[in-house]
Amino acid sequence: MPELRKDPVTGRWVVVSTERQKRPNDFVLHRADVIGREHCPFCPGHEAMTPPEVLAYRQNGSGPNAPGWDLRVVPNRFPALRVEGTLDRQGEGMFDRMSGIGAHEVVIETTDHDKTFATMSEAEIARVLWAFRDRVLDLKNDIRFRCILLFKNHGAGAGATLEHGHSQLIALPIVPNFVREELNGARHHFEHKERCVFCDILRQELSAGCRVIQETSHIVAIAPYASRVPFETWLLPRQHGSRFEDAPRPVIESLAGMLKALAGRLDRALEKPPYNLIIHSAPLSEDAGAFFHWHVEVMPRVSRVAGFEWGSGFYINPTSPEEATEVLRAVRL
Amino acid sequence: MPELRKDPVTGRWVVVSTERQKRPNDFVLHRADVIGREHCPFCPGHEAMTPPEVLAYRQNGSGPNAPGWDLRVVPNRFPALRVEGTLDRQGEGMFDRMSGIGAHEVVIETTDHDKTFATMSEAEIARVLWAFRDRVLDLKNDIRFRCILLFKNHGAGAGATLEHGHSQLIALPIVPNFVREELNGARHHFEHKERCVFCDILRQELSAGCRVIQETSHIVAIAPYASRVPFETWLLPRQHGSRFEDAPRPVIESLAGMLKALAGRLDRALEKPPYNLIIHSAPLSEDAGAFFHWHVEVMPRVSRVAGFEWGSGFYINPTSPEEATEVLRAVRL
Repeated sequence: MPELRKDPVTGRWVVVSTERQKRPNDFVLHRADVIGREHCPFCPGHEAMTPPEVLAYRQNGSGPNAPGWDLRVVPNRFPALRVEGTLDRQGEGMFDRMSGIGAHEVVIETTDHDKTFATMSEAEIARVLWAFRDRVLDLKNDIRFRCILLFKNHGAGAGATLEHGHSQLIALPIVPNFVREELNGARHHFEHKERCVFCDILRQELSAGCRVIQETSHIVAIAPYASRVPFETWLLPRQHGSRFEDAPRPVIESLAGMLKALAGRLDRALEKPPYNLIIHSAPLSEDAGAFFHWHVEVMPRVSRVAGFEWGSGFYINPTSPEEATEVLRAVRL
Repeated sequence: MPELRKDPVTGRWVVVSTERQKRPNDFVLHRADVIGREHCPFCPGHEAMTPPEVLAYRQNGSGPNAPGWDLRVVPNRFPALRVEGTLDRQGEGMFDRMSGIGAHEVVIETTDHDKTFATMSEAEIARVLWAFRDRVLDLKNDIRFRCILLFKNHGAGAGATLEHGHSQLIALPIVPNFVREELNGARHHFEHKERCVFCDILRQELSAGCRVIQETSHIVAIAPYASRVPFETWLLPRQHGSRFEDAPRPVIESLAGMLKALAGRLDRALEKPPYNLIIHSAPLSEDAGAFFHWHVEVMPRVSRVAGFEWGSGFYINPTSPEEATEVLRAVRL
C-alpha cells in the first residue's frame, strides 16, 4: 500500500511506495526501455492489456474494453496511489502520514500509435481535454480528493515509458507544495492589488509583446518573464477563471488549437524535443475563484541533463524568453 | 550580461542569460558530451585552460596556476553569474529583475582525473570541505551576496559535463525559494515548539533506528522520512549550528568520512549511480542561528528520467526510506 508522507521541515508531501522489492538488483532502475509498437497496451486490439476503462469515447455499437474507441481512459496499471480504502491520517512521532489514497489514470489519446500533439487534429486534442474535464467532474464527487493533477510527459526524455501518445491524471487527498506556492502567491497579489496576478501578467505581456508567442481571441501563449528552462511556455486563457473544468467550449477548442500549434513550433524549432505539460487549476478544496487563474505550463527538455536544479528548484536558464519567443514565432506552421 | 528575474506569482528567482545565441541550431542542446581525459582542463599541466585560480592548496614552492597543487578553486569558465558590477535592481512594469551579480566557482578536488568521493581518502574529501569553507569566509565579505550554494553534480547523469571530480559554488544576491521554504518551515517549527526541527528529527530517528544508515559521534546519516527519491540521504551534524562554515574541525572531518562511506555504499548497492549533493546552510543575510541546522542532502539519480516531478516538485518515490536504509546499511565497506 502506498503512503503519503509529509516532510516535517518544508511541509512537502511525497508519495512513498512501501511495497517491498525483492532483490537488491531491483533497485538499479536502468533507464526504462520505452515500450514500442509490438507490445503496446494502448493500441486497438490490446484492450485486455490495460485495466478496464473508466471512460471511453466510442463509435456507435462498440462495447467497452474492445476496439471501436476513439479515446480511452484507464487506471494506471502500476498506480502510484490506490482508489480503495479510507483516508487514514496518522502521526508517527513528529511525522505525519496518510494512506496513499488517490486515483492515477491514463488517457489514451488516439488509436494511432505514432500521433503526437503536433500531428493530431485540433479535434483530437480537444477530445483529450474533454476527457480530462469529464474525469475531473466525476472525481470531484469523491470528497477525499483535494487536488487533481493533469499532465503529459511527451517523449522518453521527459519520463514517458510508452511511445503511444497518452496523458495522465492523479487525484490527491493533499495539495502539493507547487500548487500551494502558486496559490499563495496569487492570493498575496490579490490582497494587495484586488486584481488577479495572471490577468495582470496577460495585460502587461500583451502590451509589451516581446514574449507573446501566439494569441487567439481566447488563449495567449507567452514565454514567461522568469522562464525556468529554454522555451518554457504558458498558455493563459484571456477570460479569468480558477478551474480548467469550468472553461467554456470555445476556450477549450482554442486551447486545443494552440497546443497543436505549440507542439508544431517546438518540433520544428528544436528537433522534436521531449516536454512536460501540466494544467494548473485551483484545488478542489479551496475557493480560489477571485485570485487564481487556470493555465497550462509546458517545459521542453532541450537542455542537457538537469543538474542540481532538479533537487533544488533553483534554475539557470541559458535562453532568454524574448529570444525563445522570436524563435518560436518565426516557425511557419 | 546575465539577469536575475523574479516570477511575479511564486516569487521564485531565476538566472536568465541574455547573451544572444547565434544560429537557431544552437538552441538544440544535445546531451552535452562529457569532457574526458584528453581535453580535461582540470588535470595538472592544463592550468592555463581555466581562469586564474582564486584559491589553491599547493605544495611548498609551487607558483599559482602551475602544477604543484593538491586542490584548486577557479572561476567557472562559463559562469551563470558575473562578479563585476553593481546590484542594479529594476522594475519592468510588474516584473522585478536585477543584474546577474554573483560568483560561480569550481573546486577541482584532486589532481587525479578519475577519483571520486568513493575512492578519495577522507583527508582529500576534508580538503574539499575546507576549500568550501575558505571560499565562503572570503565571499561573505562581499555584502552583495545573501546566499551561497555549495553543491556537487556527480556523473553525467546528474548534470556533470566534466569527468574530473569537481564541486561548485554559486554566491547569489538573492535567497532561492528552496532555501526560503526550508528556512520558513524551520522557523515555524521553532515558533511553536521552541526547538530546532532538525534536532527533533535527529532525536526521533536515532530512537526509531529504521532510517539511520550510519552514525558517528559527530554526524548521523539518515534516509529522510519523506524521501523524494530512492536512496535520498541527509547527513546531519549532531551539534546544532546554522552555518556549515562555522562547523568545528572534528565535525568537518567526520563529515568527510561519512561522505566517503556514503559514496562507497551507493556505488556498491546501486552500481555507481550519479548523484546531486547540496550543502544546506543558513543564508548570509539572516540570523537563523536558533532554528536552522545546516546539513547535507544527497539525491542519487537511480530512477528513470524524471517526469513531471521535474517541473512540479511533486515526487513519487518507489523505494521507501526504510528499505533504502536496509540496503545501504548492508553494504560492506
